[in-house]
Amino acid sequence: METIQMSGQIGSLDKGGLCRLALTDEDKQMRDLFVKWLKEADLAVRFDDFGNIYGRKEGTNPTAAAILIGSHLDTQPEGGRYDGILGVLSSLEVLRTLNEQPIDLERPVEIVCFTNEEGARFEPPIMGAGGLAGVFEKSFIFNCTDKDNKTFGEELERIGYKGSQKNRIDGIFSFIELHIEQGPVLECENVDIGIVTGIQGMNWLEAKVIGQADHAGPTPMSMRKDALAAASKMITEIQQIVTEQDTEATATVGRLSLVPNSINCVPGEVTFSIDIRHSDDRIRKHLHSEVLQRISTIAVIENVQIEVKEIWETDSSHFSQELIDCMTEQARLLGYSTKKMISGAGHDAKYINKLANTAMIFVPSAGGKSHCQEEFTEEAAIEKGANLLLRIVQKLAGGDK
Amino acid sequence: METIQMSGQIGSLDKGGLCRLALTDEDKQMRDLFVKWLKEADLAVRFDDFGNIYGRKEGTNPTAAAILIGSHLDTQPEGGRYDGILGVLSSLEVLRTLNEQPIDLERPVEIVCFTNEEGARFEPPIMGAGGLAGVFEKSFIFNCTDKDNKTFGEELERIGYKGSQKNRIDGIFSFIELHIEQGPVLECENVDIGIVTGIQGMNWLEAKVIGQADHAGPTPMSMRKDALAAASKMITEIQQIVTEQDTEATATVGRLSLVPNSINCVPGEVTFSIDIRHSDDRIRKHLHSEVLQRISTIAVIENVQIEVKEIWETDSSHFSQELIDCMTEQARLLGYSTKKMISGAGHDAKYINKLANTAMIFVPSAGGKSHCQEEFTEEAAIEKGANLLLRIVQKLAGGDK
Repeated sequence: METIQMSGQIGSLDKGGLCRLALTDEDKQMRDLFVKWLKEADLAVRFDDFGNIYGRKEGTNPTAAAILIGSHLDTQPEGGRYDGILGVLSSLEVLRTLNEQPIDLERPVEIVCFTNEEGARFEPPIMGAGGLAGVFEKSFIFNCTDKDNKTFGEELERIGYKGSQKNRIDGIFSFIELHIEQGPVLECENVDIGIVTGIQGMNWLEAKVIGQADHAGPTPMSMRKDALAAASKMITEIQQIVTEQDTEATATVGRLSLVPNSINCVPGEVTFSIDIRHSDDRIRKHLHSEVLQRISTIAVIENVQIEVKEIWETDSSHFSQELIDCMTEQARLLGYSTKKMISGAGHDAKYINKLANTAMIFVPSAGGKSHCQEEFTEEAAIEKGANLLLRIVQKLAGGDK
Repeated sequence: METIQMSGQIGSLDKGGLCRLALTDEDKQMRDLFVKWLKEADLAVRFDDFGNIYGRKEGTNPTAAAILIGSHLDTQPEGGRYDGILGVLSSLEVLRTLNEQPIDLERPVEIVCFTNEEGARFEPPIMGAGGLAGVFEKSFIFNCTDKDNKTFGEELERIGYKGSQKNRIDGIFSFIELHIEQGPVLECENVDIGIVTGIQGMNWLEAKVIGQADHAGPTPMSMRKDALAAASKMITEIQQIVTEQDTEATATVGRLSLVPNSINCVPGEVTFSIDIRHSDDRIRKHLHSEVLQRISTIAVIENVQIEVKEIWETDSSHFSQELIDCMTEQARLLGYSTKKMISGAGHDAKYINKLANTAMIFVPSAGGKSHCQEEFTEEAAIEKGANLLLRIVQKLAGGDK
């Protein structure tokens, strides 16, 4: 908890949250402190060409692949003190605890801090882990620019964390990421631990509804082409489609703008985003085509036109069943209640899953809030998550008996 | 037509429309040109404390009350070249024509350009005419702010059109406002002239729907308090209520904004406007209470809160029967077809009706379009409207025989 508190002082905002964007001075300050902590825990520290930082504790078997644990230390512009950070710092606590124990583990254990998970300064998100997994070309990452046109490469070099490509981790036995849930389910259902089975796939669309702007007074209802009236029916229909599908499917219209946006004008044009998520890619693709078809039908009925732009699509990830079973068993032994759940948000684990057996532990988020200053997880909940992480590492590293 | 074209160059947009918001630099530029035209027509120019501009032609009887004609020169953010403008510029043409004729009229004739009819920058609309008629307190008008927190008073002074209270028109014999219909009826029925019998009453409301902002990924549909999902259902319901009432009733949601307005966030707050109109005030009040009741019910069902602010309410207006008969007779003499109609839109005539006998002439709007860049009225239709206005002024001012 002290470690978390010290992290909470770097890039701190007035309402208790953090602004620690990737590769800024605040990120460097946090990294420096983190490296100091790693060294104090007798870990061998290195960083790779993407700036991912590793702290390694050797095992008794010098040729065995490592257990990797960790997450990220960067935040959103108005982020909280737990998203990502909790995964890195509870991993550090696990290694500190292992140091205090007399038992030598067979496998090496490495703690990792990935660069730029949030993607808030340099898009896309999950860059350090994505680079490691070959999802993004190295040159693509290095040429990404922030809003001031500074490149990722320049800024990584500036803060002194551009390491060697040779330092990338090689041969991961398993990767376990502890993270806050960022949703309300664990808290609502009073469950200690979320056993994450995978990450939902996602479609991002942008729909533009084109009607006819008219004066609100003299245009009879029957003669209007009201783009907002049509968009409202579409939004209701989109929500209906996913609700009818199953309890997992989500669709969100989070962004909307209208023209002319004047109190006494019939809206002529409405543009809105659609975010569709599901862990079953076939279901997601079905929802996607269902949404397109049904909003097109509404457009015809409402006498407006519609144009839909595909912004982004990503398939779902499925975590290792072996690890899921192991985590469930260890939680049971600790007496913690668990719930298997799918993650709606992306995480470093999404890309590391391409390289090695991967799984995630979720701990509850107060009020389901995240990506905001109010983000909070209780000490008791953190302790349970960290204890479970410790037990899994001991189990996987082959030294708990 | 040349005069209209020159006006169409001040504040012009790419699709032929205008953005000439009240008390902006564009408004000032148009006013300056208008004043120049008034002076060229040998009219005595003055402006009052609300910035209403007058051009006066004296009659033979120095104590007779004046015939007032005119409208406004400001536009919506994406407005057209005719709304209001046609009334001012056809009045100017009437005075130019009277100057060419040898007959002296008994009564003075004044042309007026009212300040801020649209209410697009400073709400409420019809401010200049409303100030004159005592509908709004002067201090209320002067303290109205735009979105940048600039006041009406500051901006009126800045553009140099704050005149003296003494310059307000005093003793109007009749006010005639020529205006585009802004609806599709005259064109659809192939009628030359709309004889306007009155103006619908109106309610303006602002509804704020308060839900809960959440991350779009990890928040199940059933646990959301999605302010936009709720607002969409309300908008559909509002339209339903008026459509069920009768063919005259209208309701418009023209303005909407949401927070945080981000593609992967569940909307936490949505604010939207509601505009309700009917010529029968009892029916309008019934629709108003019906809307309030049914959106409150939706708020309960959708598990969000709602706050509704009454922005403005105005009762319906009924114009002078004497003027309506006079206009009908003069149109008949000119061989123009006419239709008696109620105006769905508010106009400067609405408030001047409180001060003097008032009536309006409507000319057709192509496709019924207005408050948009495509607003258009044919030259032949404009000519008929202006001819009728000239004949009525001559008739009322007592110099046509």
